[in-house]
Amino acid sequence: MHATVMYGAGDVRIETVPDTHLIASTDAVVRVSRASICGSDLWPYATLERTETGRRMGHEAIGVVEAVGADVRTKKAGDLVVMPFAFSDGTCVFCHEGLHTSCIHGGFFGTGDVDGAQAEAVRVPQADGTLFVLPVGEDDALMPSLLTLSDVMGTGHHAAVVAEVGPGKTAAVVGDGAVGLCGVIAARRLGAEQIIILGRHADRIALAREFGATDVVSERDEEAVERVRELTDGFGVHSVLECVGLEQSMRTALSIARPGGAVGRVGVPQNETMPASLPAFYNNVTVGGGPAPVRAYIEELLPDVLEGRIEPGRVFDQVVRLDGVPDGYRAMDEREAIKVMVQP
Amino acid sequence: MHATVMYGAGDVRIETVPDTHLIASTDAVVRVSRASICGSDLWPYATLERTETGRRMGHEAIGVVEAVGADVRTKKAGDLVVMPFAFSDGTCVFCHEGLHTSCIHGGFFGTGDVDGAQAEAVRVPQADGTLFVLPVGEDDALMPSLLTLSDVMGTGHHAAVVAEVGPGKTAAVVGDGAVGLCGVIAARRLGAEQIIILGRHADRIALAREFGATDVVSERDEEAVERVRELTDGFGVHSVLECVGLEQSMRTALSIARPGGAVGRVGVPQNETMPASLPAFYNNVTVGGGPAPVRAYIEELLPDVLEGRIEPGRVFDQVVRLDGVPDGYRAMDEREAIKVMVQP
Repeated sequence: MHATVMYGAGDVRIETVPDTHLIASTDAVVRVSRASICGSDLWPYATLERTETGRRMGHEAIGVVEAVGADVRTKKAGDLVVMPFAFSDGTCVFCHEGLHTSCIHGGFFGTGDVDGAQAEAVRVPQADGTLFVLPVGEDDALMPSLLTLSDVMGTGHHAAVVAEVGPGKTAAVVGDGAVGLCGVIAARRLGAEQIIILGRHADRIALAREFGATDVVSERDEEAVERVRELTDGFGVHSVLECVGLEQSMRTALSIARPGGAVGRVGVPQNETMPASLPAFYNNVTVGGGPAPVRAYIEELLPDVLEGRIEPGRVFDQVVRLDGVPDGYRAMDEREAIKVMVQP
Repeated sequence: MHATVMYGAGDVRIETVPDTHLIASTDAVVRVSRASICGSDLWPYATLERTETGRRMGHEAIGVVEAVGADVRTKKAGDLVVMPFAFSDGTCVFCHEGLHTSCIHGGFFGTGDVDGAQAEAVRVPQADGTLFVLPVGEDDALMPSLLTLSDVMGTGHHAAVVAEVGPGKTAAVVGDGAVGLCGVIAARRLGAEQIIILGRHADRIALAREFGATDVVSERDEEAVERVRELTDGFGVHSVLECVGLEQSMRTALSIARPGGAVGRVGVPQNETMPASLPAFYNNVTVGGGPAPVRAYIEELLPDVLEGRIEPGRVFDQVVRLDGVPDGYRAMDEREAIKVMVQP
């Protein structure tokens, strides 16, 4: 079969690899209907050291179950499923607490011996816990929005939940990538009264406004902080969704939080440290977040997608076949595309 | 009158200064019955650059109101009051939210033109909002425990609240200073099932055990992390109370939090950065805290002090007159004393 392999920064190839097959009795093999390229894939695309073996890429997918291991009970061949970016058994203490990304028997697609989903098929460990069966067909028009439940919509929602967005509150979203845009959807969905998006790309900002952003701040650093304060009676916002992952963006996020506010961070940190003292400590600002337990959020978000109340699939502005994936990486890296959907 | 002035690291003097007097119509002048030396006073004691004018010290006190300004409505001469380490108007949006340390008209004793409480008397701005009238007399045996409501007990409680301590949960307290010891009291009071204290001083550890600590970890850094994991089925604790403020202690705190856990930090950060990524991000650990709004907590904690259910005053193991304050600093700095009470 064909799959996406990254050999180093900027070097993404579609290669013929051995067909995916069951390994553990709890596995499923899923034929990929839709996959996507993630903003987090752009970090290795920028920095990965060259390797001989390469890294199998992709962790967001919808697909059809082709085969299941002997111990899989709740999934069967033919099921159309969402594959969250992390696999999880659904039964451990952390899964029960809704933190599937810390599952004791879990892990992440595209790491170790678990291959990626930018491929014709993917092996899914812990299939019973990991996969979510969709109540629609493979060609449903909602497919793009359903695909976001595998990562970006759940991740934007996680940022909003951790940032304690609620009715009547003010929120700011740092970053206008696909996760930031989904963060706007999530903030509005959870009742935020004012939603400020911090970003500089006209097309993304336009989409953010359609998703519910009430204000746009295109300045950076200290100027951005000043602008947000101007928009919030000088106080800053209750809730900040940090959807970038740079030290600079985290500093901005901490600086625009109102005293007693909360920052929900979902951008994978690209720097080893973040500010410890000013302003977060003196303002009693809480910082939380991490890899989103998107598996936990599918049940909650699905009805809104199915009934059209939210349309996170609009973040996909390019669709490619598998052989178009390398160019998809380039397009996202050059900010030519917001997010690329892969239809193998 | 006499007051404590710090002129540089290690240089604390008792000096004759102009008598305290009302400045604003919302002020009170309070004669100090009991004050104390705070762990946070040891940071300038170690590092303050020499100045000609010096810094007036002290931010924890109980005293008797001597005079009030024309606009003070709820305090009167003769009232025995607790003075929280921050002053606050009690009416602004942040005070209403219970975050008195972010009061719009507030500030901290011993900074700017607001003098310190290691003195015969102290001017208290925003007296109506700041001061809390005690229902006991000046010579009550509970005075040491009541004095801790001005800072350390409220601060330990804040760490526990932010760390989301609750019934049946596991907690760890990083630091065996007076705040850490009060953190143990707070964690027990809020129902923690297991309370691990991380510290190395035999006298403090003994007191921690009396306050409710169930386990002691005296190792440091990676070894401490290993020990805590051993004590908690390999997972770490739900709640970490960071009561030191060094980058090293924060790193330990983040490392011993269980996935999905929370760190409540009240140690004033002495380093500009803290770890951004591992382990907090991948474990979805939340970090919150800051200067404790102790004013907000007095109502809740007072009954437990008055009825003897908690005895935070036991952290005071030395009492000095005002002329003994310089030696009190030395004793705390050399870990000869846990915490020094000042009886002017």
